[in-house]
Amino acid sequence: MDIVDPWGSSIIDYDKLTKQFGIKAFKDVLDDIPSPSKLMTRGIIFGQRDYDKIAKALNDNKEFATVTGMMPSGRMHIGHKMVVDQLKWYQKMGSDIYLSIADMESYAARGITKEQSRRLALEEYIVNYIALGLDVDDEKFHIYLQSENDEVKNLAYTIGKKVTFSQMRSIYGFDNSTNISHIYTPLVQVADILHPQLEEYGGPRPVVVPVGPDQDPHIRLTRDLAAKFYDEYGFIEPSATFHRFMTGLTGEKMSSSKPKTAIYLTDTVKEATKKVNSAKTGGRDSLKEQKELGGRPDECSVYELLVYHLIDDDKQLEDIKNKCINGEILCGNCKQCANKHLTTMFEKLEDKRSQAMEIAKNLLTNE
Amino acid sequence: MDIVDPWGSSIIDYDKLTKQFGIKAFKDVLDDIPSPSKLMTRGIIFGQRDYDKIAKALNDNKEFATVTGMMPSGRMHIGHKMVVDQLKWYQKMGSDIYLSIADMESYAARGITKEQSRRLALEEYIVNYIALGLDVDDEKFHIYLQSENDEVKNLAYTIGKKVTFSQMRSIYGFDNSTNISHIYTPLVQVADILHPQLEEYGGPRPVVVPVGPDQDPHIRLTRDLAAKFYDEYGFIEPSATFHRFMTGLTGEKMSSSKPKTAIYLTDTVKEATKKVNSAKTGGRDSLKEQKELGGRPDECSVYELLVYHLIDDDKQLEDIKNKCINGEILCGNCKQCANKHLTTMFEKLEDKRSQAMEIAKNLLTNE
Repeated sequence: MDIVDPWGSSIIDYDKLTKQFGIKAFKDVLDDIPSPSKLMTRGIIFGQRDYDKIAKALNDNKEFATVTGMMPSGRMHIGHKMVVDQLKWYQKMGSDIYLSIADMESYAARGITKEQSRRLALEEYIVNYIALGLDVDDEKFHIYLQSENDEVKNLAYTIGKKVTFSQMRSIYGFDNSTNISHIYTPLVQVADILHPQLEEYGGPRPVVVPVGPDQDPHIRLTRDLAAKFYDEYGFIEPSATFHRFMTGLTGEKMSSSKPKTAIYLTDTVKEATKKVNSAKTGGRDSLKEQKELGGRPDECSVYELLVYHLIDDDKQLEDIKNKCINGEILCGNCKQCANKHLTTMFEKLEDKRSQAMEIAKNLLTNE
Repeated sequence: MDIVDPWGSSIIDYDKLTKQFGIKAFKDVLDDIPSPSKLMTRGIIFGQRDYDKIAKALNDNKEFATVTGMMPSGRMHIGHKMVVDQLKWYQKMGSDIYLSIADMESYAARGITKEQSRRLALEEYIVNYIALGLDVDDEKFHIYLQSENDEVKNLAYTIGKKVTFSQMRSIYGFDNSTNISHIYTPLVQVADILHPQLEEYGGPRPVVVPVGPDQDPHIRLTRDLAAKFYDEYGFIEPSATFHRFMTGLTGEKMSSSKPKTAIYLTDTVKEATKKVNSAKTGGRDSLKEQKELGGRPDECSVYELLVYHLIDDDKQLEDIKNKCINGEILCGNCKQCANKHLTTMFEKLEDKRSQAMEIAKNLLTNE
């Protein structure tokens, strides 16, 4: 299967990262996946560990689980939508979904209280997850606050026995001034990932964790601890996929705390399209130059928007890319195209959010 | 009030310890305590921190709580009875009693599973606590397994934010090879002590923790964290008392893992009295010498048994001490006296244990 690769040269960093830490290329398993998602075929999900197990479960129609977490802080932006798209895909494929709200981590790392976490998770994140189409009423969907999940907390403590401060320090860069809750927190996250394999949650089975590559040290620790507790729990080492980060509209990383870099899901259509209009593109300094040299879609935050979120048709995307490179279309055209799709998406989102809020509110109060 | 001091010279170490770390003498507060216990008047409880608060609560008939924990490992010996005697006294004085079964600590420090902890706690410890007269049906009595107490676990994590690895290392001697659960465990114990002051447990009020002096670093950490979280929870810094350890029958420390040093509460009368008969005393090498020089009750494990557990009447005790020093009685006399009382106590214990087992079993299954 061909991969639409919108990055050209920028892919090199991901390649390096892949080689250095032993992440495998996602394209190695792509052919084994029944109806892969756009994020997969477009190389946005670029790496994996042990995905064979998940591919096999998908093909054999066997049980598996997908685990992810959210650390509520700030507003949800369009880059975060990638996680939802992946969850939706796994949900469609029949996977159990486990969604952890990392209120313990939020507290230790940022001093956010549990109540703030709960509110932020519900009102900012979950609402958008639902509005984006995640089915939270599915019986295979599970959501919880870390601080309220006893099995997760107990498992965190149990597995902590087989990891030393030295290991944690080399993985997370802790030092003597790090507070103990912070030191302990990664174990809660490891437990988030491993607990679906406890007997009371369905027992040992493949688990996939879709993450950004910065989370790989964490995945390695989890796999290490799964192996160390195999005798006790029969844990299968969790698989992972690694996706690229979205470039911000300014060219730097898209970040919740930098409004100019990010389109927030709760932006109005006017706000969102305005941001697109002033976004950094791969265009040239002058119209003349652009027509002569062509644009650079691999350096263009607007093109990225199209690839990640806005254009479903691979052929159309390829066409835009080629026309840009050949100087046949200009940045204004692409922004107009992006804004057209963005408007549709955001109007739909806004519409769905009000009823999503009702669903969201019942979600964690019923737990 | 006079203190019966059965130790003479051996008291010096405790004095040193007291001065070095700022533990205050218990005798400083003794006069303020209504009907103090024998362990208090006999100087077995020799030190305290902030006991004024407890004395005041006792005199004013105000609410306060007593907290203790047990780490189930091995068998309960007669030295452990001291804790029960203190709990009984505080219970009589109207205190809330909180008894934590440190199954999390047992796991991290000794690899004992939660199930083993539960069984050991019930069948070995609680049974004897009940047989010794602790009223576990009292509505002010609370017992729990750490791993099953959510408020304790959450509080441990919360307070961990204000203590660094460096602090924990200097208090507990942790190093890079220490496992994370072990590093985290002291926070669970701190939470054991602080949680009775949470609103859902009755809110801020004086708390006393009766411990051996080896536990003082832990008390200091607890008091430090109570102060650091005063704004959030209104914690009153817990008070503590410090009691002497029993000397073992061989002259070394009494220890569950060294059968010759300890009289187990489940020993038969025959086993127990046999141990007393071969115990190390403060007697001299020959009968002649003993009559001339007198015995040394302050170096005698049998005399300690009498003081700690077997003789209630201070005058009788004083009499035995003087007669020993003057060479008027011999070690055989004291052993006989000890065995007489021990026989009564153990027969009563054995008798009560069978029905205590029924009570114990219901205790943790109902939680």
